[in-house]
Amino acid sequence: MSQSEQFTHHFADRLNQAIIQKQTPLVVGLDPRINQLPSPLTVDNPGDLTQVAIAYSTFCCEIIDVVADLVPAVKPQAAFFEQIGPLGMAALAEVVDYATAQGLQVIMDAKRGDIGSTATAYASAFLGRKPQSSWGCDALTVNPYMGEDTLQPFVNAANTTGSGIFVLVKTSNPGSHTIQEKRVDDQPIYSLVAKHVEQLSANHVGETGYGNTGAVVGATYPEQLSELRTAMPHTLFLIPGFGAQGGTAKDVAGGLDENGLGGIINSSRAIIFAHELPQYSAATSWQAAVEQATRDTIDKLADGTTASKLR
Amino acid sequence: MSQSEQFTHHFADRLNQAIIQKQTPLVVGLDPRINQLPSPLTVDNPGDLTQVAIAYSTFCCEIIDVVADLVPAVKPQAAFFEQIGPLGMAALAEVVDYATAQGLQVIMDAKRGDIGSTATAYASAFLGRKPQSSWGCDALTVNPYMGEDTLQPFVNAANTTGSGIFVLVKTSNPGSHTIQEKRVDDQPIYSLVAKHVEQLSANHVGETGYGNTGAVVGATYPEQLSELRTAMPHTLFLIPGFGAQGGTAKDVAGGLDENGLGGIINSSRAIIFAHELPQYSAATSWQAAVEQATRDTIDKLADGTTASKLR
Repeated sequence: MSQSEQFTHHFADRLNQAIIQKQTPLVVGLDPRINQLPSPLTVDNPGDLTQVAIAYSTFCCEIIDVVADLVPAVKPQAAFFEQIGPLGMAALAEVVDYATAQGLQVIMDAKRGDIGSTATAYASAFLGRKPQSSWGCDALTVNPYMGEDTLQPFVNAANTTGSGIFVLVKTSNPGSHTIQEKRVDDQPIYSLVAKHVEQLSANHVGETGYGNTGAVVGATYPEQLSELRTAMPHTLFLIPGFGAQGGTAKDVAGGLDENGLGGIINSSRAIIFAHELPQYSAATSWQAAVEQATRDTIDKLADGTTASKLR
Repeated sequence: MSQSEQFTHHFADRLNQAIIQKQTPLVVGLDPRINQLPSPLTVDNPGDLTQVAIAYSTFCCEIIDVVADLVPAVKPQAAFFEQIGPLGMAALAEVVDYATAQGLQVIMDAKRGDIGSTATAYASAFLGRKPQSSWGCDALTVNPYMGEDTLQPFVNAANTTGSGIFVLVKTSNPGSHTIQEKRVDDQPIYSLVAKHVEQLSANHVGETGYGNTGAVVGATYPEQLSELRTAMPHTLFLIPGFGAQGGTAKDVAGGLDENGLGGIINSSRAIIFAHELPQYSAATSWQAAVEQATRDTIDKLADGTTASKLR
């Protein structure tokens, strides 16, 4: 195997390579919502799930057309596709295929988690290229509540297929205190999870210094983000909560390393529904609004974080 | 609304009614696995996902034909369907529809969980009858790691649609110690989750004394099961880990109340793949093996638990 083949076969290297190429850690979240689709894609009858699924697929693929040259990755949110049933899941598969064909990394945000052979089934569903996996994603978000043994099948699949996982560590919502902030032996639960994730990542580091087991750490907790960046030097971060959820560039700055790598920052609603925002009302089309919002977000991140080093 | 209509509109009442009618708390888990399908359904080419999806749907629907008169509910495991992609999800929808048509309660084991509007999307995907929801299930398993605010959309949907949720509290796998057993203020995390679940359930109790927010508590931890049964008097338990995972009737006994209600006990592999077991090798067909394994499991539960009171 040549060095360049090895490079592209490790998820963290592939992602970092894409970040360097696109000069930004911004990830666009694909969260289609029926009531917010731009007018050319408005669905007359929300009960007609065939029509809704076509609209979702079209909407996401058109966004991909706009952002494919601008960002390293997209993050489809499985829930919004699952919401409309099997037709939605077929649309989700189309979106994954299309994003992959456009050279984007695809991070499936499905927050799966289960025991033993069931976790193996989820892992083989999502992780790796087709036909190795049915959905063919580059990475998957995973929930750690059931324990270390339930993460292992995902880690094994990631190692084998050159894909990655992002384990929920400290999420962006207010209720993340319920379990994640509870203190055990003077450290919060999220730190315990973080230590395990860092160990898993350190066990399988690529050429760019990061492993394939990442962590989800919310932009809405900037102190914890900086603290975890230091504590988890081999771990890629997926950082939600930027933009519509209230996180600013300053808030996410601590999630990146000194070269602007090590983290990807997700924005969903503030980009994909830019047509609803007053500052983009002059855009000539909803796609033009998406493009402008993407460029503006990239600039904001470059102004406020080490993402500036990527330019 | 008449009393009987009210009765059937609360998930716990509907489930308890079905348990009383079938005289057993046994739930059959639908976990199709390509390498274990009985010979009439063997798939020649595992890469032909259309063929696999048809085999999974046929396998599960034939099991439903066998068990519909014997048990109150089935529990499809979403992972095994998701493993084969969108065609698998279409097969899953067929299985849910078929089980519902045969009068079974359908508990979707998908362990979903996410924040705010994303949780609402998952809830509206699964909870409630069609077309109110796209999948039309009676209940859904839910992961609490992201916090209390992430459970609320599921609770709201359950209240509105007469469906239920089962929140992961203490799972059946060895790694459940990683987070669930960690002690905070001298009580384990699973007890904190259990208290919140009991409160949610107590807020929406049906005529049979149980609420619509249930708990997943593994059969492999019998002491915790008994302790939680006492601490959670309004909470339905979904008890996995019986049978193939090692739990015995004695182990699950503490999960039921004095009338044999309050809990459902899942068995998947030991029933649906009974054709592989030596004790059923004399069965005239794989379906006959499933029927005999179901009847034997029902008898074991009646012998070793208060499920005897249902007869």
